Amino acid sequence: MPAPTARGAVTLVLGGARSGKSRFAEQLAAASGLSLVYVATASAHDDEMRERIAHHRARRDDRWRTVDVLLDLAGALDAETEPDRLVLVDCLTLWLTNVMLAGADIDAEIEALLVALSRVSGPVIAVSNEVGYGIVPDNALARAFRDHQGRLNQRVAALSTRVTLVAAGLPLDLKLPKAPNE
Amino acid sequence: MPAPTARGAVTLVLGGARSGKSRFAEQLAAASGLSLVYVATASAHDDEMRERIAHHRARRDDRWRTVDVLLDLAGALDAETEPDRLVLVDCLTLWLTNVMLAGADIDAEIEALLVALSRVSGPVIAVSNEVGYGIVPDNALARAFRDHQGRLNQRVAALSTRVTLVAAGLPLDLKLPKAPNE
Amino acid sequence: MPAPTARGAVTLVLGGARSGKSRFAEQLAAASGLSLVYVATASAHDDEMRERIAHHRARRDDRWRTVDVLLDLAGALDAETEPDRLVLVDCLTLWLTNVMLAGADIDAEIEALLVALSRVSGPVIAVSNEVGYGIVPDNALARAFRDHQGRLNQRVAALSTRVTLVAAGLPLDLKLPKAPNE
Repeated sequence: MPAPTARGAVTLVLGGARSGKSRFAEQLAAASGLSLVYVATASAHDDEMRERIAHHRARRDDRWRTVDVLLDLAGALDAETEPDRLVLVDCLTLWLTNVMLAGADIDAEIEALLVALSRVSGPVIAVSNEVGYGIVPDNALARAFRDHQGRLNQRVAALSTRVTLVAAGLPLDLKLPKAPNE
Repeated sequence: MPAPTARGAVTLVLGGARSGKSRFAEQLAAASGLSLVYVATASAHDDEMRERIAHHRARRDDRWRTVDVLLDLAGALDAETEPDRLVLVDCLTLWLTNVMLAGADIDAEIEALLVALSRVSGPVIAVSNEVGYGIVPDNALARAFRDHQGRLNQRVAALSTRVTLVAAGLPLDLKLPKAPNE
Repeated sequence: MPAPTARGAVTLVLGGARSGKSRFAEQLAAASGLSLVYVATASAHDDEMRERIAHHRARRDDRWRTVDVLLDLAGALDAETEPDRLVLVDCLTLWLTNVMLAGADIDAEIEALLVALSRVSGPVIAVSNEVGYGIVPDNALARAFRDHQGRLNQRVAALSTRVTLVAAGLPLDLKLPKAPNE
């Protein structure tokens, strides 16, 4: 069975807010023994977010190199050409928020990301939120966000070799790599 | 093991918004090889909804017959008396919304639906939303909806032979048909 | 394999609103054959809540002793010193709400609860809500609540021997007790 951290393999880690998904993804990354790149998509636009970023950053040791990306996630993935380097993207939800707030062409940006994910050199772990399990939001922007996020998760899950849902810090695999003889 | 599409068997497909639950239910239906009825409960009351209906409709081929039902879902199920015809109901959440908006007796409508589901001739696949995994909604109507939806899902799950949760397009079985010798 | 109801074992039952999690927890408790304590954290502050409390109470038979706790859940757990008595806490979400509304020191209260849970005499089943699977709430208090709830669930899950997610009344185990020889 190929490891989820095999070259070019994409692992999607899904979960709700404060589900422990980032921590799980970091542990999965650290267990690979590879050199590690943390692609941070959070923009420190307010104190609440700055605190979260600092909290996450404090958890990572010096094996990590951090790259900050607001919009061009496809470009950041393309720039990582070393097959023995694991790239952790945390997270697709903040990236999608950035794309929507910037008024960019959402469908085009998503397609570009999917192309980049399909041709990565080293293993990639992408963290993303499940946001569709509540009542329909009142405002149209929140509904649109929920739709884009849901479709993005489906598309990334389809090209991933492993998809894991995290709840209360505990992983539940929705998709696992196939054994070579399957 | 009886197939989830055995005569009279009910399959419940649960998921969040944009989780891929409808697509999964359609693929499950199409794989049955039976003739197919699509019971559509969406009312095209605004552009957003019209677009979603068209999007779903475009995915179904001409093996499907479509029946539009706003309120009398029990009657629509009772009308399908052909045991080799699979009925896909998409979805219970929109039907429940219609019932609440119409000011109908919600408990009575739910009981009628459960009776109809318990005596269907052919296999039925019902799609429904999970809506209770967010923060308590501010307004009382949304809270009431969440309560009715949650209880409806529990009731339908109890009489179903298979219950599958779909996340990011991937199925996770919560209940499976029992083998004959169990 | 130690039963989830072994002395000192903590079982966490997670689920959305109206997911059937309380009923599942009660059935798990009743199946233990032990004497039963129901620690109720709901405060009957409005008609809606009074109705829910009555609904839950009607379901429990006279094997149950009920203890009402608004804030001092740690104290209530410490007071149960009988190892053959099962304590069901329903639920951590309402307790956390009470703590926040009372303006108490949330982190200190959570730490005290975790200490109490780590030294219970008899088995404990704690029910809690998943609230982080919707869109980011508009208001800061709801966001703070969601964060505290998510972290609390992770912390309690980490010290539990069994963690079960309930959806549509159906249990899905996220963590199970280890067999003795593991």
